[in-house]
Amino acid sequence: MADTVKSVAVQDIRFPTSLESDGSDAMNKAPDYSCPYVTITTESGLQGFGISFTVGRGNDIVCKAIELLSHLVVGRDINAILKDFASFWRSLTSEDQIRWLGPEKGVMHMAVAGIANAVWDLWARKENKPLWKLLVDMEPDQLVSTIDFRYITDALTKEEALDILKSMQTGKAKREQELAASGFPAYTTSCAWLGYSDEKIERLCKEAMAEGFTRFKMKVGSDLEDDKRRAKILRQTMGPDNLLMVDANQKWEVPEAIDWMKQLAQYKITWIEEPTSPDDVLGHAAISKALQPLGIGVATGEQCQNRVMFKQFLASGAMQFCQIDSCRLGGVSENLAVILMAKKFGVPVCPHGGGVGLCEYIQHLSVFDYISVSGSLDNRMTEYTAHLHEHFVSPAEMKNGCYVLPQTPGYSIEMKSSSLASYVWPTGQVWQKLIQDGVYKLN
Amino acid sequence: MADTVKSVAVQDIRFPTSLESDGSDAMNKAPDYSCPYVTITTESGLQGFGISFTVGRGNDIVCKAIELLSHLVVGRDINAILKDFASFWRSLTSEDQIRWLGPEKGVMHMAVAGIANAVWDLWARKENKPLWKLLVDMEPDQLVSTIDFRYITDALTKEEALDILKSMQTGKAKREQELAASGFPAYTTSCAWLGYSDEKIERLCKEAMAEGFTRFKMKVGSDLEDDKRRAKILRQTMGPDNLLMVDANQKWEVPEAIDWMKQLAQYKITWIEEPTSPDDVLGHAAISKALQPLGIGVATGEQCQNRVMFKQFLASGAMQFCQIDSCRLGGVSENLAVILMAKKFGVPVCPHGGGVGLCEYIQHLSVFDYISVSGSLDNRMTEYTAHLHEHFVSPAEMKNGCYVLPQTPGYSIEMKSSSLASYVWPTGQVWQKLIQDGVYKLN
Repeated sequence: MADTVKSVAVQDIRFPTSLESDGSDAMNKAPDYSCPYVTITTESGLQGFGISFTVGRGNDIVCKAIELLSHLVVGRDINAILKDFASFWRSLTSEDQIRWLGPEKGVMHMAVAGIANAVWDLWARKENKPLWKLLVDMEPDQLVSTIDFRYITDALTKEEALDILKSMQTGKAKREQELAASGFPAYTTSCAWLGYSDEKIERLCKEAMAEGFTRFKMKVGSDLEDDKRRAKILRQTMGPDNLLMVDANQKWEVPEAIDWMKQLAQYKITWIEEPTSPDDVLGHAAISKALQPLGIGVATGEQCQNRVMFKQFLASGAMQFCQIDSCRLGGVSENLAVILMAKKFGVPVCPHGGGVGLCEYIQHLSVFDYISVSGSLDNRMTEYTAHLHEHFVSPAEMKNGCYVLPQTPGYSIEMKSSSLASYVWPTGQVWQKLIQDGVYKLN
Repeated sequence: MADTVKSVAVQDIRFPTSLESDGSDAMNKAPDYSCPYVTITTESGLQGFGISFTVGRGNDIVCKAIELLSHLVVGRDINAILKDFASFWRSLTSEDQIRWLGPEKGVMHMAVAGIANAVWDLWARKENKPLWKLLVDMEPDQLVSTIDFRYITDALTKEEALDILKSMQTGKAKREQELAASGFPAYTTSCAWLGYSDEKIERLCKEAMAEGFTRFKMKVGSDLEDDKRRAKILRQTMGPDNLLMVDANQKWEVPEAIDWMKQLAQYKITWIEEPTSPDDVLGHAAISKALQPLGIGVATGEQCQNRVMFKQFLASGAMQFCQIDSCRLGGVSENLAVILMAKKFGVPVCPHGGGVGLCEYIQHLSVFDYISVSGSLDNRMTEYTAHLHEHFVSPAEMKNGCYVLPQTPGYSIEMKSSSLASYVWPTGQVWQKLIQDGVYKLN
């Protein structure tokens, strides 16, 4: 029976995180974690919630882009959408005039993510399952039918994707039980933002270890001597066996990245994340090759614009850790495409978390990856940061440094109505006070 | 003496070109050529005009993005901006919150182009020269100082760029005289859009030959037998020695592109343009390799998002013709970076024209390229389409299939005030009538 989409509403939600220097790194000095918050409602009353993610100014541009796309959703039958999700998704990415603004990248693709994620949330709620469970329980045929394979068939055909999923059917129930018992391994980025003092880094690292974390990420790239000092503090605090990753947030030129990392290798670095431009596949391949003898892998992906770029990174040995992003790629189904390509090329998926809502999202993707695709926890870990979880109805939960398997139906992104009211830009109470006090101004 | 930027104004200008099926191709069925039209004004009364380019819906999103960026321009001294243009440009592309929305791609980069192009127009008017002449007369040091080399130094350093420019100083005056006498060679895309009948194609091809054109481009990719029939008509009409290029506008998968072009090779094709995703460097490299024995080159660039992507295309043999775009790259200086990289890698630059205003822009870039960088016309030709030139104060002019050297000061993009009034969306008279008549509706 048809159930028409009645409305696609979007709110501009922002948090004044720059006041705390949470999230500061070599390229993002003062982010205000923000999201366009999408609510899709059908005639029968079904709802789905979705976000995209930005770091402040320009969040309204993504909201506008979502409004521009909404005419492609409103008035359609939600059951027809779910029956052929790949075609629905392509109608969003390939509208014949709007496509010029991308294609499939930047603002417009983030807008697609906001809408697509809301449809997936609705789908999971409709089936009364958390999103990961919806995906895990889908027949391989149906799962693959949600993916648009355009531009990736030279690396992964629909048939190869099916074969991967079918070959992993055995053992799914056991892997689900394992994760239900122990959770999915995480690492924390909350100890070592660039704006933090040495004392704060040491204290936060100790606290995180007490909570069960064994994997830590540090921001680098502004000053080499400073990076060495902070890496030394972290390595001494965490001991020799725990994992240390570093993140340059695209600060370097290709040769500079290689030179800089040679200087940090002594601290036993698992990966260097975003050493240079996120668009530079061949540059990352050169860095990977140069750092391989030092045991340092290259990680990237949080600003990798779409599956076509991931295809090239994976196929050319330009990434040793694949960091999918739930809001920069066009939502769940494009992430599924990348997860399947990563499996084919033998690269572990370690999703990008942090910001607002990203941890809530990626836990579902990692759990699906383990149960249905990779079947391995080797070199797999999902980012965790401690910020802003209090605004969600069903926030991500950690136990012993692992994500606890989400149980609530949906994609875990519904926000509390009190948070929406307080943080909607620029009329929410929190923003009105900050503007009145002269701390912020209307752009 | 300081001369402060007083205002950055933007207008949403759209033309109902879809009513004529001008510009129809395999991916863009019905474009309405459009542009955000930027006017920069200083306290002393200097003005500069700039556009970005879209194909209709979403033009307002780019306008909004220009408004978002305008706070980085208003209040600054225009003379300080011109003295260190590269730093000014980076302040637009790397604003620490806004950068997340790209970086340097799609909507936000098109917005940067609109602003940067307006500043370059102002600069040329201030010097009372057409833009190409401003560039040609600049000392190599100054020219190079306008370019942001971030993320391309592994392919081209500032010093290498300087060496290229210095080595080409000899003969500049002679090359300028040559172009003043004969113009810059063009090819036409106006004969063979997908929506045109066979009779119309033949008639337009004959008319273009009578005007002096010897190079023609045809749209392909929807139906192989149809493409063969149309290529045959064109090849028969133009004769065996004139050049025929074809353009698939990203329609194909990588293996599909190779198979399809093998079928068209009999019509003696100079290049296949945009065979697949504009993001797929390695895919284009595979297609280039497969088609090389057939004498078919790969051309791409009109949707190549920035200099980092061009760097990879050029360095990896993925493009044999480099199609810079004046509005998708972030304006003149990023185009200079690509022109210089193309020189280093020995790839001819054949800019993307058409739409609205693109021909007005690219003539300047091609002329500069020949006089100051490449010094060669081999395999160089600049796209020309016949649409919408009547709206410009100093439109591009053709003579014997060549662009006539522009003489008016500036970057040739100022529009007639009557055109602005008629075509501003949605309040212009033309749009009001189309909306009243039910031909168009407000989104």
